[in-house]
Amino acid sequence: MRLGTVRVGDGARLPAVERDGLWHALDIPAGVTLEALLAQGPGETRRAADGAVGPLPGAVPVAPLRPGKIVAIGLNYLDHIRETGMDKPARPLMFAKFPSSVIGPGEPIVIDSGLTGSVDWEVELAAVVGTPLRHAGPAEALAAVAGYTVANDVSARDLQFSDGQWTRGKSLDTFCPLGPVVVTPDELGDPQGLRLRTVVNGETVQDSSTAEMLFGVAELLSFCSASFTLEPGDVVLTGTPWGCGAFMDPPRSLSPGDVVEVSVEGIGELRNPVVDGTR
Amino acid sequence: MRLGTVRVGDGARLPAVERDGLWHALDIPAGVTLEALLAQGPGETRRAADGAVGPLPGAVPVAPLRPGKIVAIGLNYLDHIRETGMDKPARPLMFAKFPSSVIGPGEPIVIDSGLTGSVDWEVELAAVVGTPLRHAGPAEALAAVAGYTVANDVSARDLQFSDGQWTRGKSLDTFCPLGPVVVTPDELGDPQGLRLRTVVNGETVQDSSTAEMLFGVAELLSFCSASFTLEPGDVVLTGTPWGCGAFMDPPRSLSPGDVVEVSVEGIGELRNPVVDGTR
Repeated sequence: MRLGTVRVGDGARLPAVERDGLWHALDIPAGVTLEALLAQGPGETRRAADGAVGPLPGAVPVAPLRPGKIVAIGLNYLDHIRETGMDKPARPLMFAKFPSSVIGPGEPIVIDSGLTGSVDWEVELAAVVGTPLRHAGPAEALAAVAGYTVANDVSARDLQFSDGQWTRGKSLDTFCPLGPVVVTPDELGDPQGLRLRTVVNGETVQDSSTAEMLFGVAELLSFCSASFTLEPGDVVLTGTPWGCGAFMDPPRSLSPGDVVEVSVEGIGELRNPVVDGTR
Repeated sequence: MRLGTVRVGDGARLPAVERDGLWHALDIPAGVTLEALLAQGPGETRRAADGAVGPLPGAVPVAPLRPGKIVAIGLNYLDHIRETGMDKPARPLMFAKFPSSVIGPGEPIVIDSGLTGSVDWEVELAAVVGTPLRHAGPAEALAAVAGYTVANDVSARDLQFSDGQWTRGKSLDTFCPLGPVVVTPDELGDPQGLRLRTVVNGETVQDSSTAEMLFGVAELLSFCSASFTLEPGDVVLTGTPWGCGAFMDPPRSLSPGDVVEVSVEGIGELRNPVVDGTR
């Protein structure tokens, strides 16, 4: 199943299922969000999708869900580790993005030049948690994934590195594009062999495979669950591959007028324009 | 007003107001949380408290709210900066605690000795956001505070420093005791002249004043709002003063069997036992 949240003609937002490029309303009570539905388990999600009616006229996908928390992982692709010249982390390197940074497909990434002069892209496979996880082994952790989506872990490199703590530079409003759909694990298959790419103004800048992950999705979620509870609706960003702007020679960054498109095979493309929001 | 969330006889949790040490049910529809009420503004909160009935028999305070996000600030007390020997930060040093770490008064802080051997206390004044804030000056930021509570920013020092990124060591389950009440600004008065203390097993280890803050509450919230939106129900932890265990000679840390009590003048005491949760 390819699930998402759409805005319809009257401005309302509702969960929906995508079939052949068209969005259909799910068979669920009004007010139930996608994250609440996913928390009810794959059986209920399947039932809601089987009862879907539609298509919905004028449906536009927005961010598929509002995460409870966003756990992000740094330095988790072998090709990216080589590019940075850093050592392989002995364990996953964890940081946070605030959920207030989430935007959906097509929404603008806003750059305030008074805050940052160095904004970078990071395509990532994002795992959406469906079942509470605590002290879970890798197999149990993988089974708790309700679905996968695409994230752009947009990063203000100057803030990230001058603060030392990465939270602020990673959490500016609009710095977490998410979507366009959440694909269930039964439909996506093995999450460790998917091509993922970033294209800026038509030029491919990241092009790799989730096979390059140092710690796979199962290990990452298991590792998180040893420290804290992963709750339904939490999202884990699994790291970015080779090709960030900060490590190019000369370094590159995003500017107003750019269009950045991140994609993961089997899920889809997440395209966002970059605009100026200087105060 | 002194607001909180209580567990009553049948296990239900509901927002309540404390008067003369007794808890009274607010005049609000069933299912409305304290954070949802606070988001409706001080007028509605006052109306709900004026209509309160009670007292509620057997009411036990739990965590007053579940934050949307927890923004935490490091190195923000002059006496603490002197103790660490570090330079004054030029701007607030921000990091994140995951909301899944929140517990309430009396609930145990659980230490997994397989994860950490160095667990520290940090008493903090916590500001609860009531109004969305973005690009706000200090006065507007202060006016958006719905109330203040006490937090213990419990920290696994070994994880915090070996990870480099502080998120994990600060976000272990049970590592954010919060409560016992949220005191509204009209009742608390100036947040910058409050005594705050930590007492471990009866011994005072932190004893300072919020007057020691490098950046006050108004400046901190204004600074946050320049980078991202503070939303109703978000909580900002404003830093800890002199007296953490990690900077003592020899260093001290919490162990199972300890009882740690953090308090802020005009709000109250937040007391939590420490227990072993080694896997």
